[in-house]
Amino acid sequence: MASYPPAIERLLDELTRLPGVGPKTAERYLFALLRQPSAGLKAFGQAVANLHETILNCQRCHNFDTQSPCRYCRDRQRDQQVLCVVADAPDVLAIEQTGVYHGLYHVLGGTINTVEGQGPEQLHIADLLGRIPKEKITEVILAMNPDIEGETTSLYLKKALAPSGVRLTQLARGIPTGGDVTYLDEATLGEAITHRQPT
Amino acid sequence: MASYPPAIERLLDELTRLPGVGPKTAERYLFALLRQPSAGLKAFGQAVANLHETILNCQRCHNFDTQSPCRYCRDRQRDQQVLCVVADAPDVLAIEQTGVYHGLYHVLGGTINTVEGQGPEQLHIADLLGRIPKEKITEVILAMNPDIEGETTSLYLKKALAPSGVRLTQLARGIPTGGDVTYLDEATLGEAITHRQPT
Repeated sequence: MASYPPAIERLLDELTRLPGVGPKTAERYLFALLRQPSAGLKAFGQAVANLHETILNCQRCHNFDTQSPCRYCRDRQRDQQVLCVVADAPDVLAIEQTGVYHGLYHVLGGTINTVEGQGPEQLHIADLLGRIPKEKITEVILAMNPDIEGETTSLYLKKALAPSGVRLTQLARGIPTGGDVTYLDEATLGEAITHRQPT
Repeated sequence: MASYPPAIERLLDELTRLPGVGPKTAERYLFALLRQPSAGLKAFGQAVANLHETILNCQRCHNFDTQSPCRYCRDRQRDQQVLCVVADAPDVLAIEQTGVYHGLYHVLGGTINTVEGQGPEQLHIADLLGRIPKEKITEVILAMNPDIEGETTSLYLKKALAPSGVRLTQLARGIPTGGDVTYLDEATLGEAITHRQPT
């Protein structure tokens, strides 16, 4: 079977490490990169090579930023006693973009996923438990995805946080804005009825 | 609207230059890269930065290889008088993997696409025309995709190559292996009837 020269195959292998990228997509990416001018490739390559020097993991909340502690942890205007727990760093930006949350964050760095061998000890759960008494946190909002891994993680955290006596809340379940009652899945519609809110 | 720090935004911009990558995919890729160890990132980043030094465009056929002329152009065992014209370098490997072609290649570097402002002068068509008399080519196989851009390019090449008197062929049109007559699109089925072959 014909194949590319080893140097090209190695690069294709590197590209397939990106999430959801198979051999054909890696090929498309590589040939798209080859069409870019040298200067652009050098700048991009250097940025990737120095990623860990440029983008730091916040020592307090594990969000990614160009400084540690991150800009949310440094911002004294924010409510210092409410903590929103998210699975991954992009979730922080998603919540920031709503403009309705003004507390602090804690990024777990993933969810409990027994199939992929990711247990609670691989996540930033120990520091979360430490932050509650140390920072006198009064409320923890669990903002994991409503899927199996997210629910498992929430359940684990609920048990782990119970002894601290902190107020525990989670994102409201219900009809998404723009949703259609006729076509909603039963689980979502069921949650919307169960958790119906006063008008 | 909340956004990432400038250093992160710049990297996300670079990632969205890859074909088919939007802001959300760029975000997934960036955070996947951040999870990789520093050594891996350095190696990958350097490989991207040095792409144009490692992977060369063959001066003769414009295929990509670690040497120029490329391994197909260097291989004297191949039929030196048959030229297969393809749009992009990955097509060369696809044809090689069939194991049925043993001639030379010519990579155009794209197709004629008037919508995106890519005309014949942006493609390696002038050198193709030059190769025919210089290398005493007897047959040119047009192996462009059977879509609008591919057909336009084939038509253009047909006219441009006519004065040379070279034998012009194209990939056979018909039912793909594993295809189903009931569910084939009319264009393909029509071509399969028109170009029916003796059994």
